[in-house]
Amino acid sequence: MNNVEMVGHGLSGRSFASVDDFSNQELAYVLSLAADVAENREPFTDVCRGKIMASLFFEASTRTRLSFDTAMLRLGGQLVSAVDVGATSLAKGETLADMARVVGGYADLIVMRHPWEGAARVVAEYAGVPVINAGDGGHEHPTQTLCDLFTLQQERGRLQGLRIALWGDLKYGRTVHSLAFALARFGATIVFRPGSGFAAPEHVLSKLATDYGGELVHGDVLSQSEGEGVLPVDALYMTPHSPHQLAMLPHLSAQLELDRGVDALYVTRLQKERMQTQADMKPEDYPVVDRKLLRKKGFERSVVLHPLPRVDELSLDIDSDPRSLYFKQAHQGVPVRMALISLLLGCNPRTVQPTEWFGEDWRPVAHPRYVHETGIHCPNERCVANQPSELRYLPQKFVLVASTPPRLRCGYCDHETEPAVVATAEAYDEPTYRRKYHRARSRWATTIRPENLLLFASAEDAEAAGFRPGAA
Amino acid sequence: MNNVEMVGHGLSGRSFASVDDFSNQELAYVLSLAADVAENREPFTDVCRGKIMASLFFEASTRTRLSFDTAMLRLGGQLVSAVDVGATSLAKGETLADMARVVGGYADLIVMRHPWEGAARVVAEYAGVPVINAGDGGHEHPTQTLCDLFTLQQERGRLQGLRIALWGDLKYGRTVHSLAFALARFGATIVFRPGSGFAAPEHVLSKLATDYGGELVHGDVLSQSEGEGVLPVDALYMTPHSPHQLAMLPHLSAQLELDRGVDALYVTRLQKERMQTQADMKPEDYPVVDRKLLRKKGFERSVVLHPLPRVDELSLDIDSDPRSLYFKQAHQGVPVRMALISLLLGCNPRTVQPTEWFGEDWRPVAHPRYVHETGIHCPNERCVANQPSELRYLPQKFVLVASTPPRLRCGYCDHETEPAVVATAEAYDEPTYRRKYHRARSRWATTIRPENLLLFASAEDAEAAGFRPGAA
Amino acid sequence: MNNVEMVGHGLSGRSFASVDDFSNQELAYVLSLAADVAENREPFTDVCRGKIMASLFFEASTRTRLSFDTAMLRLGGQLVSAVDVGATSLAKGETLADMARVVGGYADLIVMRHPWEGAARVVAEYAGVPVINAGDGGHEHPTQTLCDLFTLQQERGRLQGLRIALWGDLKYGRTVHSLAFALARFGATIVFRPGSGFAAPEHVLSKLATDYGGELVHGDVLSQSEGEGVLPVDALYMTPHSPHQLAMLPHLSAQLELDRGVDALYVTRLQKERMQTQADMKPEDYPVVDRKLLRKKGFERSVVLHPLPRVDELSLDIDSDPRSLYFKQAHQGVPVRMALISLLLGCNPRTVQPTEWFGEDWRPVAHPRYVHETGIHCPNERCVANQPSELRYLPQKFVLVASTPPRLRCGYCDHETEPAVVATAEAYDEPTYRRKYHRARSRWATTIRPENLLLFASAEDAEAAGFRPGAA
Repeated sequence: MNNVEMVGHGLSGRSFASVDDFSNQELAYVLSLAADVAENREPFTDVCRGKIMASLFFEASTRTRLSFDTAMLRLGGQLVSAVDVGATSLAKGETLADMARVVGGYADLIVMRHPWEGAARVVAEYAGVPVINAGDGGHEHPTQTLCDLFTLQQERGRLQGLRIALWGDLKYGRTVHSLAFALARFGATIVFRPGSGFAAPEHVLSKLATDYGGELVHGDVLSQSEGEGVLPVDALYMTPHSPHQLAMLPHLSAQLELDRGVDALYVTRLQKERMQTQADMKPEDYPVVDRKLLRKKGFERSVVLHPLPRVDELSLDIDSDPRSLYFKQAHQGVPVRMALISLLLGCNPRTVQPTEWFGEDWRPVAHPRYVHETGIHCPNERCVANQPSELRYLPQKFVLVASTPPRLRCGYCDHETEPAVVATAEAYDEPTYRRKYHRARSRWATTIRPENLLLFASAEDAEAAGFRPGAA
Repeated sequence: MNNVEMVGHGLSGRSFASVDDFSNQELAYVLSLAADVAENREPFTDVCRGKIMASLFFEASTRTRLSFDTAMLRLGGQLVSAVDVGATSLAKGETLADMARVVGGYADLIVMRHPWEGAARVVAEYAGVPVINAGDGGHEHPTQTLCDLFTLQQERGRLQGLRIALWGDLKYGRTVHSLAFALARFGATIVFRPGSGFAAPEHVLSKLATDYGGELVHGDVLSQSEGEGVLPVDALYMTPHSPHQLAMLPHLSAQLELDRGVDALYVTRLQKERMQTQADMKPEDYPVVDRKLLRKKGFERSVVLHPLPRVDELSLDIDSDPRSLYFKQAHQGVPVRMALISLLLGCNPRTVQPTEWFGEDWRPVAHPRYVHETGIHCPNERCVANQPSELRYLPQKFVLVASTPPRLRCGYCDHETEPAVVATAEAYDEPTYRRKYHRARSRWATTIRPENLLLFASAEDAEAAGFRPGAA
Repeated sequence: MNNVEMVGHGLSGRSFASVDDFSNQELAYVLSLAADVAENREPFTDVCRGKIMASLFFEASTRTRLSFDTAMLRLGGQLVSAVDVGATSLAKGETLADMARVVGGYADLIVMRHPWEGAARVVAEYAGVPVINAGDGGHEHPTQTLCDLFTLQQERGRLQGLRIALWGDLKYGRTVHSLAFALARFGATIVFRPGSGFAAPEHVLSKLATDYGGELVHGDVLSQSEGEGVLPVDALYMTPHSPHQLAMLPHLSAQLELDRGVDALYVTRLQKERMQTQADMKPEDYPVVDRKLLRKKGFERSVVLHPLPRVDELSLDIDSDPRSLYFKQAHQGVPVRMALISLLLGCNPRTVQPTEWFGEDWRPVAHPRYVHETGIHCPNERCVANQPSELRYLPQKFVLVASTPPRLRCGYCDHETEPAVVATAEAYDEPTYRRKYHRARSRWATTIRPENLLLFASAEDAEAAGFRPGAA
């Protein structure tokens, strides 16, 4: 078995809760198999015969669910499904872990959409069968990212080094988050073009910089071109064109970047269903992609993608434009998901040779695990670890992604928190009266070795744990 | 390939949004194949293997949906489904056209029930795969009509020239509308026997007269027999016994027609879910078919049909009567839908020889399309073309079904409107001050050639378009 | 064909609305086939090819429905389903009988969960195809019982003479009722250990005594051990260890029974969704099974079962205990239901030889049918026979389970009623003025032969029927 074959076989039995669960080689392998399926479905007709996929949708969805269901049926597999959260035993107070253990004993594969962020990760831990995340709140939607990457690779001939503009609701659009992470891993230049008030959240930008070697440039420069009819962008993100050659580019203009041309405009609708305040909903400021915009310099050869459904952000007047690929993109969800499902179930009938291969493979950054029990909680109230039913058994789980000042990232939902005060675990060897805490942004804090860092949300928490204020 | 075979093959890839989408020969072909299926399901067991049907039900349904689903499975096909409108992306503001394009890229066939009248027509235009209308609001339910025709043909040995009484809610019952149109095409005599206040709507009666060569006789005569315990009927509709030999029959008695005997009583329940006012709901006046009624002269050999579910209009005391065919009729939904699906998917394994053939085939009347943009809107608020999401892309679409006075029929929902004023398109060649409009029911209006007719909903609309009042 | 084979074949075409629909031999046969399936699923892969199961769930469920659906698919069959009561024609006022007749014409097998008690029995009477009760209100859930028995037989090596403690909500938990009946038939000793206020209902205890030869001992003795942290049990039920050797054991201690050891603890959650008053919901008194309890004497070798979902009554701290079998029990729902479905559909590919066989088979007690029409109604407002839609055609149906005083049991839901007054049918031969009624608990009542007993809910009812008060 050569390296490529081993990559394909290595996916058997795995889960896909996040794009980062797969290496670049693994993503490339899935996409190559998807291209194979798209070209000739015939050899795949019966490969999953006798297998059952459980479709568990705890949030409304038509297209994603139908796409998964179609994919499984076209592989010869069968479906059991639970479509409406009201119609499930979760309403009876059951935990995700119990549900996962029971359904994992029935089905061979679980596909789940759930409003809690990190829910798919928890189910993957308990089900005992492969789990595919079909969307977990505003967190990730990794198979949508697979479809997006597939369409880009098919249309542009490559994934490496693309130039992409992300357009619209970059705050609540989970598809944008997953896509940005994946694009970064393939060395893309990404221009963020959010609606006013819908910039990408801090933890997404932070992860792009921390984990994917990206360089963030804030694009106040762009606002100067507002007279041109383009609203200001809040942020411009770039990966370096040559990996490992990071350069500060403080005077770069986002508009200049757009004018240099992008391979694709990736447009998203306002995710009204995730908004928590009415004040959030100002669609009048929302940027629209229409015939006029597509006539602008830089967009001449840009393809237009959209995860659908669209509302008003994508004008109907470009539907017949050959650059409009959103319906094709939706249809490609079926071969992409067929490829993924057959690989996870170990039912893939053939080895494919990826057209684009990544010799030096990407691996997730191995941030140190934060193991001390100091009462820190994930700040995201939609995080699975903060739900009453799950709190009973699910530990808080963090990695330390930065140390000056210390910053923790939730292992379920990727939200980050910056604890207010620190202490050192070495203090436990000292008499009680000598145990001190300090401000996290103090110089003292930088002297503690990462593995000894004790982090507290507040001075009160530190004092409750037996520490006293240190010298300021 | 002979003529009959060509009729069968000609259905492949087609949609069935309305009974009028099929000619009489085509209907007869479907019914003959259904008879074949009903007799021996075995040869059809696997003909749709590898095909996927999308079941999209945006309104509650058990029996219709289960009947379609069963039919597809018994052909060896598979299902994906979206059953509850709340659980779909339509709630996110998506258009029917977008939904159709996406789902049409997944499935090989779409079956849809939707509350908007004309919705199936729109989906058929955009899906790129065959679409079957499983009910669009109060408009049509053409596969129910196929089942009704099948049961009648099986029980009476023919479709041609039947005598049928339509019973109950003729106002909101879409199954009755589709059936009346189809029966008229096969030269039936139809006696309308509505509940008080539930007469067939004007546009249905109008279409029967305009498009199917029917003769309408209003049955006030019947009310004289009220002492007999039969409530007055609002309208009696007759097709001539010999086509093309229309005769005025103003003194005909509906009761006399009933007394002469009918082949079938077609009973419907009160469609409470479509009623817009409480005042509509007076079930105490609703005519009941029971053992006593079936003893009356004229009903001795009448079979009793009902599309089910029933409420109180069909007494439980006739369930064991051999004339009661409604459960058999429901069961025949499966072979009828198997025949239809296999033909639309081009998966039909055999050619059948219809027992009843229609040499001189029926074609829909080709009314002239109304092409002028004069701001006319379909008067039906449940029409698909009047929905906010659809208005953004869907043009109003009318044909001119009469010209003295002019009357337009909506191309989606068949509702008709009579514009108040007219002008002539020739006026556009004249100086502005000479452009005049007149009342639609004026003599002047009759002088305009149909292709030049400009129709306005009101004098205000005409004036807004630059016309002035003509001499009265 | 030998006796065992005949038992297997005899299940073909049958319904399973209640555990009592099957004899002990039949239950044993199903369980043996389930063991066969569990060991090697392969020979069963395609035995139900071409068959369709209708999954009709008029109440929320995940696990039971997915378990049935998985079972049917693993047999090669197919599914049609109606999952949410709101999405069905029942909302249009249809009767269960009509629904059964229609769906029975589509599918080969119906699996139904319904909130009305006795609903599955009614559907089984009208569908014309086998019907499996997947839960009818608080009445029965017989396939859960099959799974429970299967797990017990697999773990304990036998069904005969087990010692089981039933734990938690014995009032509303239908799974407990079905299980208690089945255990009694196999000669079990059952210790009831309800939460305070959640004792087994009177009609369940009564049926255990009347129909299964059980001996009920009320366990006030147990309350003396309350200091030990065990709450008082309301009732202790025992079947004799040797059938037909009934012995009065009035001084027996339930705690002593527990201390002697039980084969299994069968735990259930509070069935909040069935409670009618807020006062019912006092989960703080609810007995919890946790690590501490399992350390007690008597539970050392007890396995822990639970029909799931659990809430708080089953501590998460015992999940990894080898005695905790509830997840395994859930998974075994699939082979058990595969065995049952294949037998009812007559698709079973092989004969099995039960490891445990019951030579002298159990048959339900044949209580005399109460045939007089005296206006008696089932006292259970959730009974199918008391629903407005069903009242129109469904007769009240009773058997006489005791005569001093007379007690009737509902033929649908098993609830019992004790009429207040009695008369004799012989009175109909007498002049009107001599027709008398008496109190049901009078001596006079004991003189009437059972077949002549006329039972009235009240003196008023008797007088309305033409009877006068007899001498007191």
